[in-house]
Amino acid sequence: MKKHIVLLPGDGIGPEVTKAAKGVLETTAEQFGHSFTFETHDIGGAAIDNQGTPLPEDTVAACKKADGILLGAVGGPKWDQLPSHMRPEKGLLGIRKQLGLFANLRPVKGFKPLLHASPLKEEVVAGSDLLIVRELTGGLYFGEPRERRNNGAEVVDTLAYTRAEMERIIDKAFQSAQVRRNHLTSVDKANVLESSRMWREVVEEKKQDYPDVHVEHMLVDAAAMKLVTNPAYFDVIVTENMFGDILSDEASVLTGSLGMLPSASIRQDGLGLYEPVHGSAPDIAGQDKANPLAAILSAAMMLRHSFQMNNEAELIESAVNKVLEEKYHTADLKLTDGVKVSGSTLAKKVSEQ
Amino acid sequence: MKKHIVLLPGDGIGPEVTKAAKGVLETTAEQFGHSFTFETHDIGGAAIDNQGTPLPEDTVAACKKADGILLGAVGGPKWDQLPSHMRPEKGLLGIRKQLGLFANLRPVKGFKPLLHASPLKEEVVAGSDLLIVRELTGGLYFGEPRERRNNGAEVVDTLAYTRAEMERIIDKAFQSAQVRRNHLTSVDKANVLESSRMWREVVEEKKQDYPDVHVEHMLVDAAAMKLVTNPAYFDVIVTENMFGDILSDEASVLTGSLGMLPSASIRQDGLGLYEPVHGSAPDIAGQDKANPLAAILSAAMMLRHSFQMNNEAELIESAVNKVLEEKYHTADLKLTDGVKVSGSTLAKKVSEQ
Ligand SMILES: CC(C)[C@H](C(=O)O)[C@@H](O)C(=O)O
Ligand SMILES: CC(C)[C@H](C(=O)O)[C@@H](O)C(=O)O
Repeated sequence: MKKHIVLLPGDGIGPEVTKAAKGVLETTAEQFGHSFTFETHDIGGAAIDNQGTPLPEDTVAACKKADGILLGAVGGPKWDQLPSHMRPEKGLLGIRKQLGLFANLRPVKGFKPLLHASPLKEEVVAGSDLLIVRELTGGLYFGEPRERRNNGAEVVDTLAYTRAEMERIIDKAFQSAQVRRNHLTSVDKANVLESSRMWREVVEEKKQDYPDVHVEHMLVDAAAMKLVTNPAYFDVIVTENMFGDILSDEASVLTGSLGMLPSASIRQDGLGLYEPVHGSAPDIAGQDKANPLAAILSAAMMLRHSFQMNNEAELIESAVNKVLEEKYHTADLKLTDGVKVSGSTLAKKVSEQ
Repeated sequence: MKKHIVLLPGDGIGPEVTKAAKGVLETTAEQFGHSFTFETHDIGGAAIDNQGTPLPEDTVAACKKADGILLGAVGGPKWDQLPSHMRPEKGLLGIRKQLGLFANLRPVKGFKPLLHASPLKEEVVAGSDLLIVRELTGGLYFGEPRERRNNGAEVVDTLAYTRAEMERIIDKAFQSAQVRRNHLTSVDKANVLESSRMWREVVEEKKQDYPDVHVEHMLVDAAAMKLVTNPAYFDVIVTENMFGDILSDEASVLTGSLGMLPSASIRQDGLGLYEPVHGSAPDIAGQDKANPLAAILSAAMMLRHSFQMNNEAELIESAVNKVLEEKYHTADLKLTDGVKVSGSTLAKKVSEQ
């Protein structure tokens, strides 16, 4: 198969981990007889520096024509003092919205060799394997009005959703549960928010279409507790944009594998933007120290979700597992009695499996 | 001193833990020569059953005249199917709003004999002692409009704040930090929300008035992570209503002492409503199994924050500590080789110290 991939390396360690993931994609293409072509564009701080805007038009145009998009990371202290419309994260928010990437998939799974790095007791975290399906283009992130009023004496933001926006993300979540363990937890704040009451209604309607999935409702405060006390309880969690932002970051530190976690932001037709969960880590940028595994696993998610290449994705994922079992690691992973290597060497080890 | 206290026992285990706390208050009054008078009113499910509304007018009127209010717990499956304006928690939201109880104080501290029950590794949780100052009468909880639109095709909730509402809670938080470890973490989502950008500005202005406090800003997603990876990092956290709801519940499970945690909801003149963080636990209600310590510690917070009785509060807190050190406990606490007793016996042990 022929696929055209847009690379958005971004800031900090973004370029080096993107390069590593590209290398693994090239190896996979060779192994399976695919042809992957690549094109690189600016986003975030790099785009501000090069083109004076965090999301240049040619970047958006290229992404619209791509089969898949791989992003490194955006942001850094260098751009922290700029006005808000000129901040690197505006690039990220803008590309999600302009491409309509409404479904953010954040799998959290413990890697056995890394579980010792979890802040949780081993018996609490053992067996955790969950997927957060976060709505990504609605809610408080884009609702209008969002403004100061009364000469700055008041301020409002708006949490807005259409029923159609709820339906498509809830469908996505039910479908995700069907290919996992058939257990869906819908998270809301229905005892306070009107939008949450509508969300619950949509879940109740949709569940008729997925009789094989066991679905339950949980309040967001209760979910924030249960993620810590019993993360293995969850299979798929679905929730609106802001709750999803908070819960998915909370979940990302549970297994001690933050440097390992991939994410996907996709839309109905399969186009998706894939990025590691970790940030741009400017303090270690350019030193070949950064852990490329989350970017590599993000590339694997692209193969699965945008290209329907399940075997290819599994091969990469099991190669990552093997490399960890052989105790190769970058400094962040703190493997006891492991072999510490550079980021590029670690990526090469994955390709060699 | 003479003080008049309104008791709102509420639902489930609410009545029994409120009774236990009342007993301890009576003992304290005797010891210190105070005169505490009590009056009991309905709230929540009990009020729905007795008076057809979760927040009867005479309850509000009595609370307005009180020096302090002690609440047990509200809610339970019995009332879960009622329409939203008739739900027990509307009683709680209503009393907060009608009395203007804008500052929710949620201290989270590990009790040494209970730390083994924490989901976190001992080295992660050790030394944790934090206070969440949550804004309680603004934000998404009360902002208007909150409604369906377009024949139910759309829905909005509104996150609304006035600058004055931000100022008073941020002042409260700085002052709380001053009597603790002088470290304030202000949590917001300034990279997305206009209200958060205003919040940051207010914090920056206010910090001039509290030069002894070290203040920093943290994004809510980062705070949700750091609470798990390094709870001991925090001293005082201040944040808006919904973020505070999520983070304070997340924080409440970190030390393994959920059944021990008190809370206060207060206003400028010192009037406050005090309640345990735990819920109404209908499954064990009426069996004298419920742990009364969170309600007792809430009563101690009342003495400190509403009555300026610091010595009295400390005496109760150290009595609770001693009882735990002597390994008396209710079933929920799971103390190894402890002496399991009933809720009322545990409360008596506190009074006897
Ligand atoms: C950078 C920020 C705007 C973004 C978000 O809140 O969505 C980030 O936290 C994320 O989760 O991808
Ligand atoms: C019952 C509910 C409305 C309430 C809230 O969200 O404020 C509760 O979760 C709390 O934190 O006291």
